[in-house]
Amino acid sequence: MTATIEWIDDKVVLLDQRFLPREERYVAFADYRDIIASIRNLAIRGAPAIAIAAAMGIALAVLNVPAQTMVELRESFASVCRDFASARPTAVNLFWAIERMKRRFDRTSGDSLDELRQALKDEALTILAEDIAANREIGRAGSALISDGEGILTHCNAGALATGGYGTALGVIRAAWEAGKRVTVYVDETRPVLQGARLTAWELHNEGIPAVLITDGMAASLMKRGLIRSVIVGADRIAANGDTANKIGTYGLALLARDHGIPFYVAAPRSSIDMAISRGEDIPIEERDPSEVTHIQGIPIAPAGIAVMNPAFDVTPSGLIGALITEAGVLHRPTAPGIASLFECSCYKGESQHSA
Amino acid sequence: MTATIEWIDDKVVLLDQRFLPREERYVAFADYRDIIASIRNLAIRGAPAIAIAAAMGIALAVLNVPAQTMVELRESFASVCRDFASARPTAVNLFWAIERMKRRFDRTSGDSLDELRQALKDEALTILAEDIAANREIGRAGSALISDGEGILTHCNAGALATGGYGTALGVIRAAWEAGKRVTVYVDETRPVLQGARLTAWELHNEGIPAVLITDGMAASLMKRGLIRSVIVGADRIAANGDTANKIGTYGLALLARDHGIPFYVAAPRSSIDMAISRGEDIPIEERDPSEVTHIQGIPIAPAGIAVMNPAFDVTPSGLIGALITEAGVLHRPTAPGIASLFECSCYKGESQHSA
Repeated sequence: MTATIEWIDDKVVLLDQRFLPREERYVAFADYRDIIASIRNLAIRGAPAIAIAAAMGIALAVLNVPAQTMVELRESFASVCRDFASARPTAVNLFWAIERMKRRFDRTSGDSLDELRQALKDEALTILAEDIAANREIGRAGSALISDGEGILTHCNAGALATGGYGTALGVIRAAWEAGKRVTVYVDETRPVLQGARLTAWELHNEGIPAVLITDGMAASLMKRGLIRSVIVGADRIAANGDTANKIGTYGLALLARDHGIPFYVAAPRSSIDMAISRGEDIPIEERDPSEVTHIQGIPIAPAGIAVMNPAFDVTPSGLIGALITEAGVLHRPTAPGIASLFECSCYKGESQHSA
Repeated sequence: MTATIEWIDDKVVLLDQRFLPREERYVAFADYRDIIASIRNLAIRGAPAIAIAAAMGIALAVLNVPAQTMVELRESFASVCRDFASARPTAVNLFWAIERMKRRFDRTSGDSLDELRQALKDEALTILAEDIAANREIGRAGSALISDGEGILTHCNAGALATGGYGTALGVIRAAWEAGKRVTVYVDETRPVLQGARLTAWELHNEGIPAVLITDGMAASLMKRGLIRSVIVGADRIAANGDTANKIGTYGLALLARDHGIPFYVAAPRSSIDMAISRGEDIPIEERDPSEVTHIQGIPIAPAGIAVMNPAFDVTPSGLIGALITEAGVLHRPTAPGIASLFECSCYKGESQHSA
């Protein structure tokens, strides 16, 4: 499997996803500002992958900042954290990663500057390793929900490319496939940025997992024809009550699934849960550039000057979610108490802003 | 307003819609086979426009066929009609137009060859004129359903470009706008062929009717936000019980409208109604080339070799349709008896396969 993001020779190397599937173009960055730009321009995207990119970017910045004193370094560090926090607004994993890096900084700030720099690099690499491990757990837990022969619909890309590796929604599908279940994955192309057509179809096709690409408007018709037995998506931010922000189009899919009696699942690490936000209405939704709608690969597909709306995410109420699949297991019909219990689970060994 | 299709100097002139909105390219055809190709390749599309193109194409073929006897001409005519009938399978207006041309042929076949050729040309021009008149009636009837200040969602293009002129769904919107109602039209881009982004947005933008382009996956979110107060679409074939085949994505929109308590309207001439088909399940659904999904304007957006489904239409059950708007008026909650009554209406002066 292709690495989404790696730390190599004190550079951050990432696969520029804007060129997929036509070209596997890797870029190596020594300047953290290039990583912020990569998050903004979607060279790297997907809530868990953004978290890893931010953590690595912060570590890279601290490594290269010409600070001589801890006071200077702390100042630079705080400034870099602010820069990363402004990169994108919706995926909470970004802020979770920044908070982790801040806590590591605080815990290590009694050490030498070099030790601090090494500690922050270690923390970023730990976040990457934990994310991959969490995805494997998500896959293991979620694959029990998938039956042999099942048609599964997914939206956007919640795969290896959206994470440190393996994927969340695609992690569940991969685990079911690895367990010998014959699945067919219906892949919503996911306009405007086409993460389904460009990224999810590419991941599944590369691995020989049966996949059928469709446009977003076809989902309801395929549900009616009985081809789709479950819907699995990732998440960009989950409120404390289970309301889930995910790629625009997810909310409609959840309604259509309910209308057809099809279970709708969200697969995400606990770093996607924001216990500070009680309900979905309070999740900030990013409005992106109109050109994502009016142009495809630089070619205009709409009249010049037409008004556009381009919210990148929508919110699915928890009542439409059949199960939330995290590295702590499957939470059926997620509600506030169930979500809170995910952070009390004795099996949980990772760190988060909630348990720290 | 731009003419979608015209008969000029014994040529059929049409606006090649594949190049919109970038270029207004008109093509003049003297060979009927070019018109069949134009229907197949979507240079002209939209159920009523296809009917007009077929009628004109048949008239053109008969005009140019080197037949010396009525027997020869009848043979050529029958062959041309078969060719047109194979152009596209779903829009019933195509078959309705062919049947009208056949009946005109039969009624006129006692006359001279030249008189017959003139009669078929007259019939095609009558079909065009009647279509425009029907759209004006649809607009007048439907505009009563639109309130001042209303946000209206439409899907695909059921505008001037889909008809002889003025449009069906867009005819209702135009009539409401001309009556002074301040509307905002939310335009689904309508993947895969982008008739919303390329055609509907272009029509509305040209006329200064407020329009906001969105991707298909945004509709549910905008409904939840209260921006959309009604949904109006066209139709490619309406079964005798009111089940309606229309552009893929329509069925999902109808469900989402119901989920949000928003009325869903179908606007179409009676030539879109197929009384020979009792229910939607029996409507043939065209499966189009996978490249419409995997490529946009010739550029690949998906991995080579990925499997694709590309049904061009879906079927909305009549129970989801708040009203069917035809040139005979507004039929609320369409059912089989109501639809049958549309053809008994004393105001109906046109001709159809049902009243002949």
